[in-house]
Amino acid sequence: MHSLLEQEIMSQPEVLARLLEREAGHIQQIVARLPAFDYVLMAARGSSDHAATYAKYAWATMGGYPVALAAPSLQTLYQTPPRMNNALVVGVSQSGQSPDIVTVLEEGRRQGRPTLAITNDGNSPLANAADYVVELHAGQEKSVAATKTYTAQLAVMMLFAAVLSGDSARLTELQQMPQIMATTLQQAPEIARLAERYRYMSSCVVVGRGYNYATSFELALKLKELTYMMATAYSSADFRHGPIATIEEGLPTILIMPGGATMNDMLNLTTELKQRQAELLIISDSQQALTQAKTPLVLPTGIPEWLSPLVAILPGQLLGLSLTLAKGLNPDVPRGLNKVTLTL
Amino acid sequence: MHSLLEQEIMSQPEVLARLLEREAGHIQQIVARLPAFDYVLMAARGSSDHAATYAKYAWATMGGYPVALAAPSLQTLYQTPPRMNNALVVGVSQSGQSPDIVTVLEEGRRQGRPTLAITNDGNSPLANAADYVVELHAGQEKSVAATKTYTAQLAVMMLFAAVLSGDSARLTELQQMPQIMATTLQQAPEIARLAERYRYMSSCVVVGRGYNYATSFELALKLKELTYMMATAYSSADFRHGPIATIEEGLPTILIMPGGATMNDMLNLTTELKQRQAELLIISDSQQALTQAKTPLVLPTGIPEWLSPLVAILPGQLLGLSLTLAKGLNPDVPRGLNKVTLTL
Repeated sequence: MHSLLEQEIMSQPEVLARLLEREAGHIQQIVARLPAFDYVLMAARGSSDHAATYAKYAWATMGGYPVALAAPSLQTLYQTPPRMNNALVVGVSQSGQSPDIVTVLEEGRRQGRPTLAITNDGNSPLANAADYVVELHAGQEKSVAATKTYTAQLAVMMLFAAVLSGDSARLTELQQMPQIMATTLQQAPEIARLAERYRYMSSCVVVGRGYNYATSFELALKLKELTYMMATAYSSADFRHGPIATIEEGLPTILIMPGGATMNDMLNLTTELKQRQAELLIISDSQQALTQAKTPLVLPTGIPEWLSPLVAILPGQLLGLSLTLAKGLNPDVPRGLNKVTLTL
Repeated sequence: MHSLLEQEIMSQPEVLARLLEREAGHIQQIVARLPAFDYVLMAARGSSDHAATYAKYAWATMGGYPVALAAPSLQTLYQTPPRMNNALVVGVSQSGQSPDIVTVLEEGRRQGRPTLAITNDGNSPLANAADYVVELHAGQEKSVAATKTYTAQLAVMMLFAAVLSGDSARLTELQQMPQIMATTLQQAPEIARLAERYRYMSSCVVVGRGYNYATSFELALKLKELTYMMATAYSSADFRHGPIATIEEGLPTILIMPGGATMNDMLNLTTELKQRQAELLIISDSQQALTQAKTPLVLPTGIPEWLSPLVAILPGQLLGLSLTLAKGLNPDVPRGLNKVTLTL
């Protein structure tokens, strides 16, 4: 019997297709109606925070807007919300329940700023606190580890980036992604076979950059939640500022490096890591990159870089699932976690 | 013979006293002259990024300004700098050399925005790119791991927060800190003794929140750079969103919990971690907190919470130093690191 996690991972192409169908026009309407703003203040936690991190890159490169990731505890612990002059205030939460994220949107509304909720539940407190609501249409996520709602949130961020860019070709590119995700997921049996080698790894490092900085954090979180290993995520730039000292012979190091602007930097890092005798797992569509790996995790070629996070996370999700099964753990209910985390 | 690292750790009270003497008035002048701005765009990497993370809390709680941490690769990799309308643009770098941080300030100036450099070298490229320059006056930092320049950067962020708050009592509180740091550092021999127990730990978790979210990241980075262990930092809120699943019996978990608004949340986390049989190292001035620890790391009492990061990092620096010596490693030159990291 397939786990809920596996079913939800495999459902992602379908979830994405439905989301694009239902929300592409809606998001165009929202962007047309939004009052002017200078920057974006975005509140999120966990996997939703990783989708927000993607937006920090994509809304800047394609829309020109700086994105500030909010610190909700400014309100919930210190009772000193910042002045939000000229900000668009965005809350991202799968459940729409987390009180601290809701608080940030309520404060934005109190200050008269436009507020946007991105959530899987259009009747949630987060949705009720927002002027504009984008739903994920992902269906209930039953597994504790987020997969389909993460890629759905990414897709919402991509829809906004495409509309903000004013380039209709971007939307056309995004329409190709359900098919490309489905192709990528066909590798599930191969990844299950490759995962055997890592049954007993207890720690690893995950590195990505730019659009895929978010992917490195999301992949590390999946490994932590599902397999309990010490997986630590970095951008390649931050990694060189100290943490690269932790690399020892044989340390599993997962590099997320689809083709694009980050490739040269990531290839240079690959060379440094091989000198330090790290064991490399490489998620890429580039032959030049993949040949450097002990364990290559192959992506389809020809994916525009700004869309690559939608597929680059998939081998990571499958690796997390396979390792969990290889360890005899329950992929649907990681120890000590609840689906909805109510942080204040 | 004492290592350079030890000398630099012990010099921090003196560095802070000199900085306060030379820069308190200067920073008041800068704030008086700054044109209006709505939010702060701050670029930094490594330990400087942790000082920026502190500012994200303190400039908001005390000045009301949201702080966005910049993504320098928007310019260096994607050549798409964001529009910086109504932003104050700040670059933080000990050396002032990192090309990506300099690029963000140059772009701010090109867009006609006010720019501020915080650096230990007033003749560096970063200083030359800025309208306003605050120097750290820390003297050359010879050890690769940043200690005195980190607390000096924190102090600059605190000076700005105090001036932005308009409350002169804040500056008076800050003037007490060199003495309180010196008192805290007297624990060095005791911490060297306690460190023996952790000679063979290979991974650990570090948790802080609010003002001390930055402390957790800086402490984890010191342990990674100096001892090569897998130290992973979290806010207590993010930690509950998944990574808490990684806690196993005996896992060393360092909690940074000086008295203040975060205490109740951190005490609740302490209870959860004890149920999971983690081994707790607690940095605190609260007896209620310290009695929960296997290894208490005691802070002086009566420190205002907003200033606590200046002293809360000190037991962590000393722990890093002591563990490095216990392992027979060279604390001044971690493997494979250079003092100046030139990321693009």
